[in-house]
Amino acid sequence: MKIAILGYGVVGSGAYEILKKSGYDVKKVLDIRPHSELGNVLTANYDDILNDKEIGVVAEAIGGLEPAHTFVVKALKAGKHVVSSNKHLICEYYDELHTLAEENGVTVNFTSAVGGGIPWLYNLNRTTNGDTISKLMGIMNGTTNFILDAMISCGRDFDEVLAEAQALGYAEANPSADIDGLDVARKTAISSSIAFKTTVAEKDVDIFSLRNITKNDIDYIKDKFGKTVRYMGFGIKNDSTVSAFVEPVILPCTSLEANVNKNFNIITLFGESVGRLSFYGQGAGKYPTGHALATDVIDVVNGERHTHIYGKVFDVDNSQCERKYYVRANFLPSEYASYEKVGSSYYIITNKMKVSEMHLLAKSILESDPLAFFAGFEE
Amino acid sequence: MKIAILGYGVVGSGAYEILKKSGYDVKKVLDIRPHSELGNVLTANYDDILNDKEIGVVAEAIGGLEPAHTFVVKALKAGKHVVSSNKHLICEYYDELHTLAEENGVTVNFTSAVGGGIPWLYNLNRTTNGDTISKLMGIMNGTTNFILDAMISCGRDFDEVLAEAQALGYAEANPSADIDGLDVARKTAISSSIAFKTTVAEKDVDIFSLRNITKNDIDYIKDKFGKTVRYMGFGIKNDSTVSAFVEPVILPCTSLEANVNKNFNIITLFGESVGRLSFYGQGAGKYPTGHALATDVIDVVNGERHTHIYGKVFDVDNSQCERKYYVRANFLPSEYASYEKVGSSYYIITNKMKVSEMHLLAKSILESDPLAFFAGFEE
Repeated sequence: MKIAILGYGVVGSGAYEILKKSGYDVKKVLDIRPHSELGNVLTANYDDILNDKEIGVVAEAIGGLEPAHTFVVKALKAGKHVVSSNKHLICEYYDELHTLAEENGVTVNFTSAVGGGIPWLYNLNRTTNGDTISKLMGIMNGTTNFILDAMISCGRDFDEVLAEAQALGYAEANPSADIDGLDVARKTAISSSIAFKTTVAEKDVDIFSLRNITKNDIDYIKDKFGKTVRYMGFGIKNDSTVSAFVEPVILPCTSLEANVNKNFNIITLFGESVGRLSFYGQGAGKYPTGHALATDVIDVVNGERHTHIYGKVFDVDNSQCERKYYVRANFLPSEYASYEKVGSSYYIITNKMKVSEMHLLAKSILESDPLAFFAGFEE
Repeated sequence: MKIAILGYGVVGSGAYEILKKSGYDVKKVLDIRPHSELGNVLTANYDDILNDKEIGVVAEAIGGLEPAHTFVVKALKAGKHVVSSNKHLICEYYDELHTLAEENGVTVNFTSAVGGGIPWLYNLNRTTNGDTISKLMGIMNGTTNFILDAMISCGRDFDEVLAEAQALGYAEANPSADIDGLDVARKTAISSSIAFKTTVAEKDVDIFSLRNITKNDIDYIKDKFGKTVRYMGFGIKNDSTVSAFVEPVILPCTSLEANVNKNFNIITLFGESVGRLSFYGQGAGKYPTGHALATDVIDVVNGERHTHIYGKVFDVDNSQCERKYYVRANFLPSEYASYEKVGSSYYIITNKMKVSEMHLLAKSILESDPLAFFAGFEE
């Protein structure tokens, strides 16, 4: 079976090199930019791939929704397997792509869409074969972990570290998708869809941005509780619903998560039989993510086929999940168990409250204090 | 395809329950003990399984070399796939079992033989499809990690914690295979065989026991270097050889390994493309290990086939790998860079030296001081 790669950017070129070195036949690479090293493997015309009967698997590494979506749909309809590293695409069209794959007797693999080089989604799916997942959680975004790690270990401020992350290429010029949580929300939605055999949409995931965290928050959490902060996504199975949310989290310093440094990721599942399983590695980068994309392609070439459940089997309901929260604001909000005033800031600990209520409360707090911050206690 | 399980002990019964609950057809369970709940699924006669054409996969969870070896060889020769959780068997007969599997067109899977519930070997093998592994390392034994964690966090002594681990069922009545490193050596040999596409034998792995570690060692390492200790196996690819050894290791307190507590395991690979990947979970137990065994069985039923390289492609040579060592003895040995005498003990730091030399030196030191201890610095 021959291979086509769509997009010769960071991930696409990484996967190309890895597949070539491992002896796999990449017949075509689609890119509109010139790449003389690719010779006649390069094409700017997708029909060259679509109409080539020898090409059995299309690896999409363009990113974004269009033209990736159009290309992938055409590939599936043409009976070609699809592998993708595109979390935005997979999250947005989870049902459509799986329906098309099933109708056309092919597979859609997308391990590299979450966790970069970490075979997280692959193993999450494999674990569900003989186990029931009760919860997943993870540091799924390298940019925000790089920022937090630098703030915590060097006592630096958010904006200063963000600028450095941008200079190093860890953060985009427009960093909003990373620091405001949309990237983690998509990864949480995709992971929850696989874990709980349903479809969780991006819009169903409650998100609180990391943007407002300050040195003072980190110091207060350290001094008061001896704990630290990470930015994480959560998917939790309730009796008849699913919870899915993204927020800053307060953790013991001896937790695995607290010791995940720089731009590394760690993602964890809790299975009824297998217990806790965690997967740690590079959440991004040319060769790590390229490796994950290439390995999914190799699975397809080797004859592995995967099925995923799709359709909205469970509603998302974040009122089914409770925890205590730390809140910092310049006034005293309606919900609190205890508080302390330092300077003009109120440092508040809530009673156990519903995740959905906290995210709603945060919206109203931000209207009065746009710099307010909260984080949930993870036990 | 129908399934047989050999041995209805801790792991076998765990896998049985998991496979039944997931809707797979376990037709026979071999055990010589009575288990009325199994009804006519139970047999004490292996021929009932061997001669049953419907049974396509045999899951061996007897443990030890015999009769497991005889049963597994017969299954392979009868064209049945074999899944095993038996590290002793897989390590001892790595070449024979893979040769027989290849000759008979079947698969041997043994994810559950290393790391209990952690899909380590499965992912290690999958990673080699598109990547070259340069190194592996891991906390692969729950008993020794439980002992170290309790010694470190509660300032207790080895013998006292070992007795508790035995009472809790974490350690065997005869704990030698765990605390003297044979268990980790077998897991290191199997992991290295897969990672480096060769055969590493148990006897090729240099081992230093954890038995002699004291509270004083832990305190000295903490006070002097701000570091901590774990007991780990290592497999390293050199230019034209492989290194494989088991020893106590000195690590930063902020490393992932240093934060692996109780009887949990973590195992790590370093791939040229993918970088560092770590896998964390329960290294033993009825349901975790049963899940790993069951998942390997499900892969076979789903048509997944795995090939492993066998034959001794690379020699094991521990002189190709160097590190600094901490040594504690009641006299000053021949090799040291610096030392300090506290009471009657010499606390010694060596220059960088070959792993093979340190293990040889340790043998001669133990002749004079049977309570001496060493640990390698992992950077």
